Amino acid sequence: MTSLHSVVNLRDARKVAIFGGTHGNEMSGVTLVNMWINNGAEIQRSGLMIKPLITNPRAVEKCTRYVDTDLNRAFTPDNLSAPRNEDMPYEVRRAQEINQMFGPKGSPDAYDIIFDLHNTTSNMGSTLILESSKDDFNLQMVNFIKQAIAPTSCSVLLNEHPLLQYSTSRSIGKHPIGLEVGPQPQGVLRSNIFESMRAIVKHALDFIELFNGGMEFQPCMVDVYRVSEKMDYPRDKNGNITAMVHPNLQDGDWKPLNPGDPMFQTFDGSTINYEGGSTVYPTFINEAAYYEKQQAFVMTKRETLTANGIKAYKI
Amino acid sequence: MTSLHSVVNLRDARKVAIFGGTHGNEMSGVTLVNMWINNGAEIQRSGLMIKPLITNPRAVEKCTRYVDTDLNRAFTPDNLSAPRNEDMPYEVRRAQEINQMFGPKGSPDAYDIIFDLHNTTSNMGSTLILESSKDDFNLQMVNFIKQAIAPTSCSVLLNEHPLLQYSTSRSIGKHPIGLEVGPQPQGVLRSNIFESMRAIVKHALDFIELFNGGMEFQPCMVDVYRVSEKMDYPRDKNGNITAMVHPNLQDGDWKPLNPGDPMFQTFDGSTINYEGGSTVYPTFINEAAYYEKQQAFVMTKRETLTANGIKAYKI
Repeated sequence: MTSLHSVVNLRDARKVAIFGGTHGNEMSGVTLVNMWINNGAEIQRSGLMIKPLITNPRAVEKCTRYVDTDLNRAFTPDNLSAPRNEDMPYEVRRAQEINQMFGPKGSPDAYDIIFDLHNTTSNMGSTLILESSKDDFNLQMVNFIKQAIAPTSCSVLLNEHPLLQYSTSRSIGKHPIGLEVGPQPQGVLRSNIFESMRAIVKHALDFIELFNGGMEFQPCMVDVYRVSEKMDYPRDKNGNITAMVHPNLQDGDWKPLNPGDPMFQTFDGSTINYEGGSTVYPTFINEAAYYEKQQAFVMTKRETLTANGIKAYKI
Repeated sequence: MTSLHSVVNLRDARKVAIFGGTHGNEMSGVTLVNMWINNGAEIQRSGLMIKPLITNPRAVEKCTRYVDTDLNRAFTPDNLSAPRNEDMPYEVRRAQEINQMFGPKGSPDAYDIIFDLHNTTSNMGSTLILESSKDDFNLQMVNFIKQAIAPTSCSVLLNEHPLLQYSTSRSIGKHPIGLEVGPQPQGVLRSNIFESMRAIVKHALDFIELFNGGMEFQPCMVDVYRVSEKMDYPRDKNGNITAMVHPNLQDGDWKPLNPGDPMFQTFDGSTINYEGGSTVYPTFINEAAYYEKQQAFVMTKRETLTANGIKAYKI
């Protein structure tokens, strides 16, 4: 491995954003970001500009996921380039504003790192979400965080699927990273989830500070779960669901689902088994917000990525 | 006890309603009631008219608690007697419609029994909610249900508090009974919670059928938790919360909270203890919907009620 992977020089990271409230009812990020806006001492790091932002303040005020449309799907090229117009959905206007402040997406002016803080009703524990398997910086950061919080587990979800990837708020940054912690109901703030999220952000900022300070991070391997397919609930011809996640699968995020294993339980008590050809690792199982997205869970496959070592250079 | 409590004759119960979707994002009741509207075989009982109803269809459609105002607080005398007006909040109009169909509240025409199906994000398990300690019929039904589902626990919450009682949808029936099952996030349908609720409704209907069929139920004692006080989150001068439910209290519904026990954890890590003078039994701990009602949990006291025996007479 080390023969193929060497240490690459990357520009130091100076501009970091921490987004909370991209979904207004995911309370850990909303609360942490509001706290840091009032008093940023905890997230200050030498030489770093760190900007906490409530990305969807109207949704936060209403304690709802979104007002007009899902902000975390709104950062598409079409939306970001559309002529400004007061009839636009609120979140499209807001995406344009955020893109002005923290992007523009794909440009050299974009923020170096954007963390986006989310909660899930699924039993996923702490999860870091990556959008690229080639991003050495993010893979090194993830590796650092995993080691820092061990033996507590921190899973890594890689969503590089051409059809299932979506246009996230964090995607306007050069190194986008999602942090998803659960289980927590929408509209609820649980102390254990709050403290888990806070600890991960702390370790992430420590990593960036060490990197900027000249520390060399050696090539490393990172176990990830790669998104492969989504699975909808069984539905009738009117689109109403006709079955629930099976009790054997409920809360079993990251555990293997083998061909023949129970997957759904219909309202009349019969079992629907998983009929795929190979073992998958479901996650986002029974996430509240995904009923409207026709998704009971997402299937992943396990994979080990290798990251180049990294070292900062300053311009 | 039996010397003081005898068997009273009550009129048989013929009209029964099952309400779901009083809060549109509490999915067990929504799903069960929709299922029974499509196929009522499971809830049919000899000699009984049983009517399932989605009480707040607009909130169900949006998967939100309510549209304009909380329907389960809307059945006040003022609301129910107000002149109809298209500018009224949707839920007030809907309360009037429901009162016409299943009440009028306090009249001889009102439905005999109204079950209202709810979910909570709190770790309350299965809970039956009563509004009167004097209702022999409901106490006998609760006793029957508790025995039928034992050893699974079913708690009884008695809300007879003059200031904390509220004007529920079910209050238009002669024997109102709330069924609250959790923990379940808003917008999520969990199979275990669904099946627990379904089983309790089955036993409740079995009880009514036995009662109507002439079975005599002997005087009995029922352990209840009586609502005594509500507790808000610590807040700053702007109304924002400054602390979370303490991890020792989180998920500890129905367990004793003793003077000096930890109650809240502030964001800077300090503990706020319970300073009351006597042991209480908190419930609805960290319920999502109660943040807006300034309630972190409700305190209860344990009490044992004695119910008269009951036997039906027919007119």
